[in-house]
Amino acid sequence: MNRPYNFSAGPAAIPEEVLREAASEMLDWHGSGMGVMEMSHRGKEFISIYERAEADLRELLAVPANYRILFMQGGGLGENAIVPLNLSRGGRIDVVVTGSWSQKSQKEARKYGNVHIAASNEADGHTTLPAPSGWQLSADASYVHACTNETINGIEFHELPDLKRLGSNAPLAIDFSSHVASRPVDWSRVGLAFGGAQKNLGPAGLTLVVVRDDLLGHALPACPSAFDYRIVAEHDSMYNTPPTWGIYIAGLTFQWLKRQTENGLTGVAAMEQSNIAKAKLLYDFIDGSQLYVNKVAQDCRSRMNVPFFLRDESRNDAFLAGAKATGLLQLKGHKSVGGMRASIYNAMPLAGVQALVGYMREFERTQA
Amino acid sequence: MNRPYNFSAGPAAIPEEVLREAASEMLDWHGSGMGVMEMSHRGKEFISIYERAEADLRELLAVPANYRILFMQGGGLGENAIVPLNLSRGGRIDVVVTGSWSQKSQKEARKYGNVHIAASNEADGHTTLPAPSGWQLSADASYVHACTNETINGIEFHELPDLKRLGSNAPLAIDFSSHVASRPVDWSRVGLAFGGAQKNLGPAGLTLVVVRDDLLGHALPACPSAFDYRIVAEHDSMYNTPPTWGIYIAGLTFQWLKRQTENGLTGVAAMEQSNIAKAKLLYDFIDGSQLYVNKVAQDCRSRMNVPFFLRDESRNDAFLAGAKATGLLQLKGHKSVGGMRASIYNAMPLAGVQALVGYMREFERTQA
Repeated sequence: MNRPYNFSAGPAAIPEEVLREAASEMLDWHGSGMGVMEMSHRGKEFISIYERAEADLRELLAVPANYRILFMQGGGLGENAIVPLNLSRGGRIDVVVTGSWSQKSQKEARKYGNVHIAASNEADGHTTLPAPSGWQLSADASYVHACTNETINGIEFHELPDLKRLGSNAPLAIDFSSHVASRPVDWSRVGLAFGGAQKNLGPAGLTLVVVRDDLLGHALPACPSAFDYRIVAEHDSMYNTPPTWGIYIAGLTFQWLKRQTENGLTGVAAMEQSNIAKAKLLYDFIDGSQLYVNKVAQDCRSRMNVPFFLRDESRNDAFLAGAKATGLLQLKGHKSVGGMRASIYNAMPLAGVQALVGYMREFERTQA
Repeated sequence: MNRPYNFSAGPAAIPEEVLREAASEMLDWHGSGMGVMEMSHRGKEFISIYERAEADLRELLAVPANYRILFMQGGGLGENAIVPLNLSRGGRIDVVVTGSWSQKSQKEARKYGNVHIAASNEADGHTTLPAPSGWQLSADASYVHACTNETINGIEFHELPDLKRLGSNAPLAIDFSSHVASRPVDWSRVGLAFGGAQKNLGPAGLTLVVVRDDLLGHALPACPSAFDYRIVAEHDSMYNTPPTWGIYIAGLTFQWLKRQTENGLTGVAAMEQSNIAKAKLLYDFIDGSQLYVNKVAQDCRSRMNVPFFLRDESRNDAFLAGAKATGLLQLKGHKSVGGMRASIYNAMPLAGVQALVGYMREFERTQA
């Protein structure tokens, strides 16, 4: 029997191959006599898991040598404080507000610096992306924050802004929680990237931070040692005991990613092709239907999170019940937005989106 | 074939029943069509896992109704900052130094308050426990910190100090990372307890905090929202996405704990009996041997972590190699102390300690 298709926004579906491998190694990892959860993080077994995960991620995302990869804890909401604690130096912080997540980020950052909203799409209900050419960037910002995929609102930067061309020398800090590893990253435009693992990388409780060397070592005195990027980097993410299981599952997911191929491409580039195809299938269907609607401007629609509404909202419950009965899970929209949301991360195969579109078409036809 | 016995100090052995259950549910938890790592933390499936874990832990540790149980991230080292961020109010902090962990705690706390060392066993190399009657407690401390089981040094408070009787009105904050759930807790003497899960409760990356209601709501302005106990409590540990897998494994471990029986007792009380017996067997053997020595004063030896030395340290490598070949894993002592360490947490059965003693006896006999 096929597993149901799980459209959860996060924690989210994990590739079945990864789950099967983790289950098979639960009591004994590679003949060590221990499961991964039972290993000292300082033993050679876990160190080998950590080193391979770090190397595979560096290869997959083409992370340059002058960027450190940190495996941390606290999630995106934790990083909303940890980033300004490490980068603000108590000074100016430019934030681009594009949806719920960047809103939370700018509110939290006010504890640690002087926040300036460089641009906002609040007036149109977070359905467009403010053009970078119109951003009001500060001359003295310590960094510029942007959430490059807004999970709740379904908005994505399809190209990262080039701050230098916009006249800012500040590093760009991106929250890429919900589209990390779904496409390549142009590191020449990024100083720091962070993301909770629970969308595209692995289980909740693991937080990925990729940070350029020169941004280490500037933490405010109030920054907890366990969240000081310099200290974490100096200890290879083992200043405190790292979330070893999360690193292991993420590592298996990186190996799975490396095996992906599409149109002659491999890894993240292959994933991007697949993600473009999946998103196009779903958005094209929605745009062509009479019942469903997506409110986000076409040029900034997320390839990962597709919020949509039934024009007749009295049929929401029937839609969700029918979907579940068909093996299409967790399609309810975020409570702050309502409606539906299909999160179609890397682990969602094209067949899952095809099944969803098939169900939506049939629901529209029979319930019209 | 039996699994090897794993004496790791943490991350540490997990009950085999728990591992088998987790493996069997990896792709489909209770017919939901999802593995636990793939569930939204806000869905009814995971909420039921969370609620049962919370209720079981409350029952196991007899946590009073006016204490909140929080599932957090960041580990013990994270809490070294998070506790003073929440409790110090920028004022006086009394710390009892009894080993490596409380040393780290007092150093980190200096960022957030005026630390006063109320007592220290540094002069004797952390081998005794300073008698509470001699502690120099401040009249105005915001809280008193103690690490009630020092994992590295092998020292344990067999009775919690009664601060009121010692003339202090400050709440006692204990780091019980490495002996939580190994014995009952006298909550009348405790304001806050915290512990990383990776010794006795589950995987690394989950941090347990039990905190009395009146200690919520006093966080310093610099405290990250995700680590503000009041905010975490108000959101039932779901302000940020919690480490769902860790809560699930801890929950299975709580169910396992509830099934334990010993001398007509159940749960943690049974566990305590078993832990006393295991520790006695090992310490008695060490004390009676010519080759092995434990340097900790008898009245404060840890039941969880048993550091010991070979009087002839040139035989350390042979001891460890032979142990591994016999199926006795991770016995090497902490690098800061040297020698050996057997961590015999709840998940270590008496048979494991018997096997260790048998090996140690044979090693002494044949290598003498």
